[in-house]
Amino acid sequence: MKYKEMSAEQRKTEFDKVSAELEAWKAKGLKLNMARGKPGRAQLELVSDLLTVLSDPAECVDEGVEARNYGELSGVPSAKALFAEILGCRSEQVFIGGNSSLQLMYDTIAKAYTNGLLHSERPWCREEHIKWLCPAPGYDRHFKVTQNFGFEMITIPMTETGPNMDLVEQLIADPTVKGMWNVPKYSNPDGIIYSAETIERIAKMKPAAPDFLLMWDNAYCVHEFEGDYMPFPDILSECAKYGNADMVFEFASTSKITFPGAGVAVFACSEANMAHMEKLIGIQAISFDKINQLRHVKYLKDKATTLALMKKHAAILAPKFKMVTGMLEREIAPLGLATWHEPKGGYFVSVNTLPGLAKRTLALCKEAGVVMTGAGATFPYGVDPKDCNIRVAPSLPPVEELEQAMEVFCCCLKLAALEQLK
Amino acid sequence: MKYKEMSAEQRKTEFDKVSAELEAWKAKGLKLNMARGKPGRAQLELVSDLLTVLSDPAECVDEGVEARNYGELSGVPSAKALFAEILGCRSEQVFIGGNSSLQLMYDTIAKAYTNGLLHSERPWCREEHIKWLCPAPGYDRHFKVTQNFGFEMITIPMTETGPNMDLVEQLIADPTVKGMWNVPKYSNPDGIIYSAETIERIAKMKPAAPDFLLMWDNAYCVHEFEGDYMPFPDILSECAKYGNADMVFEFASTSKITFPGAGVAVFACSEANMAHMEKLIGIQAISFDKINQLRHVKYLKDKATTLALMKKHAAILAPKFKMVTGMLEREIAPLGLATWHEPKGGYFVSVNTLPGLAKRTLALCKEAGVVMTGAGATFPYGVDPKDCNIRVAPSLPPVEELEQAMEVFCCCLKLAALEQLK
Repeated sequence: MKYKEMSAEQRKTEFDKVSAELEAWKAKGLKLNMARGKPGRAQLELVSDLLTVLSDPAECVDEGVEARNYGELSGVPSAKALFAEILGCRSEQVFIGGNSSLQLMYDTIAKAYTNGLLHSERPWCREEHIKWLCPAPGYDRHFKVTQNFGFEMITIPMTETGPNMDLVEQLIADPTVKGMWNVPKYSNPDGIIYSAETIERIAKMKPAAPDFLLMWDNAYCVHEFEGDYMPFPDILSECAKYGNADMVFEFASTSKITFPGAGVAVFACSEANMAHMEKLIGIQAISFDKINQLRHVKYLKDKATTLALMKKHAAILAPKFKMVTGMLEREIAPLGLATWHEPKGGYFVSVNTLPGLAKRTLALCKEAGVVMTGAGATFPYGVDPKDCNIRVAPSLPPVEELEQAMEVFCCCLKLAALEQLK
Repeated sequence: MKYKEMSAEQRKTEFDKVSAELEAWKAKGLKLNMARGKPGRAQLELVSDLLTVLSDPAECVDEGVEARNYGELSGVPSAKALFAEILGCRSEQVFIGGNSSLQLMYDTIAKAYTNGLLHSERPWCREEHIKWLCPAPGYDRHFKVTQNFGFEMITIPMTETGPNMDLVEQLIADPTVKGMWNVPKYSNPDGIIYSAETIERIAKMKPAAPDFLLMWDNAYCVHEFEGDYMPFPDILSECAKYGNADMVFEFASTSKITFPGAGVAVFACSEANMAHMEKLIGIQAISFDKINQLRHVKYLKDKATTLALMKKHAAILAPKFKMVTGMLEREIAPLGLATWHEPKGGYFVSVNTLPGLAKRTLALCKEAGVVMTGAGATFPYGVDPKDCNIRVAPSLPPVEELEQAMEVFCCCLKLAALEQLK
């Protein structure tokens, strides 16, 4: 029976029961973490061969490029080819950077701020005011980047097919709107895949700003944990089709394919953007770690081999997601306290509680030793207007710990709801 | 006999001879490169064991930190300890970044520009005008960074003991002077070691700008190729001694210790600066490549082991430098066409020709297939006011090729001088 439909007495009984449960959990002194999309130990063990795959100095040359010395700013040819195949674009459109796609995203916006993009009239630091479109719920680290540069962030509600494009199309008529965040495949945290129609509407946008920056964080491009690989349009050619070749920068990394934070990250963009960016990046670096690029090429080989590896990751991740959604289904759904998606890829389950329950639920979780992504984190400025979105990150804990953590979470959500109904 | 002291006829004879020599060199179709401080193949082979030193997944944990997963923004503890020992500072003052110290330097200045440093009144992009002190001859990539941000670069003449400190002390009374480049040990390109007095005067400077940024690029901190390791003061404690703890950022990397561009880079600064920078860097990255950090710790072990490795690099480099200075001594000194230092470390020989000969010499070299660092590159904006400084980078070519390249160089310098005297 839904809590709302219960009598005051029934709720009182339930409150006492759930309170006692929580006290029992607290007594256990748990220390569990579902805060971030960190791969678990079994996933790290899965890719151990990466440590030894490049052992012979003779193999450190790639199509004539000596990977052990300075040079080749944009990366070794074989790494560019690998990512071009994975992303569906051309090698010339790929730049292999360091270990972090977040860093590449930050750098792209920082370059716009300090120097300007290809079609900028001036560096963005010389603009009076800059606005930025933020589909939400979204990725907290994205929002922190645009907040760092002082942009005014505008929330765009997410729908089942991607961001609300009516609103986007209306807002981009304002020339101070300079860009937009996107996690188009298995969005963080909702796990939504942008529909073909959404992608087409994005690709054909006509923003008033000549240097509008479409940030396309394809973080989960091959990250299915249920079912087969889902082909996805190449946003570069989609944009080019509508005369918007220079509007988009796409990002990806191997952080959730090989070792998190010790892999390689890439961006992809038009050749004209690439020439502009190489000129600017050439001032800050001579080249990135080409040995690690080659190591990854030898290990991942090609898209088919990469997808086969992702199937192994999926075998580790799927039971964790099943645990989370299964428990929500059993414990929460009948009470009418929250809804959620059942994603088939990515790293999160996005739970939407009844209004006003997220903060209190997570505060209770913390008291019981379960750390989760802070409430509000999935919205610009960390403020969730309805205080309802909670990002569950099930990848790090082993299944046994995850089960405990989710039991605590469900208990806390119930208690928060009962407190509110008092 | 010096060219200047020759009769017109003697010079005519010499001109014909040298011209014929150069034509002979041109006919050989050489393709030689002394442009950049790139280690040669023998140096790369020297460190091949780095590829295999970290092969066991069980060894990927460092004092409780899992190097294979996200986290630990400032680096693994053992890597901080290694660099603290090498630089003579404390572990807490060390930040281990990616593969490039240039990138860390760029980022430090970029953060000042976009956000401001610890003691900045505002981000530097909000300042009317910024001036920057550039000891010269200096490192072209440094100058390009400060040029990129639009700072007005002021040349500070280098002396045998470091930059002209009288001039520096006078200029820093101007609050728009916000910083200064330094390569304090084996300066690029002169190979000068800042004297104890110079270092003390720098450490006790009282710049008018509260956020004056002393850039201390200790690129050649353990890079002796002749004689024993030369101990060098820790600039962090020197500055702290005079109440300037937050004035300095020091930089170093393993690019000329292990693999160029595939090593690890570090910066060191006061704990207060570190807290400020970690907050800012935390927006752009979750962490850097900790596997490569551990790999380097296992390979380099400690300062003593690192210095032993540097002796092996020295054995490869010393004959190359001897070749360069020996040939200059034989071919150029008697003619009175140039002077140079005889460095005991670093990667360059800095040749100062008679005024007006550098550009022409290098143009002639290029015609004969010998590429060198562009004339003027060692000065701000690429403009050498006397057109006399030429940076010779002898590390990349094998000795046989280097000998040819230097013969061509001497021939071209002679011809340029004879043309001028015509």
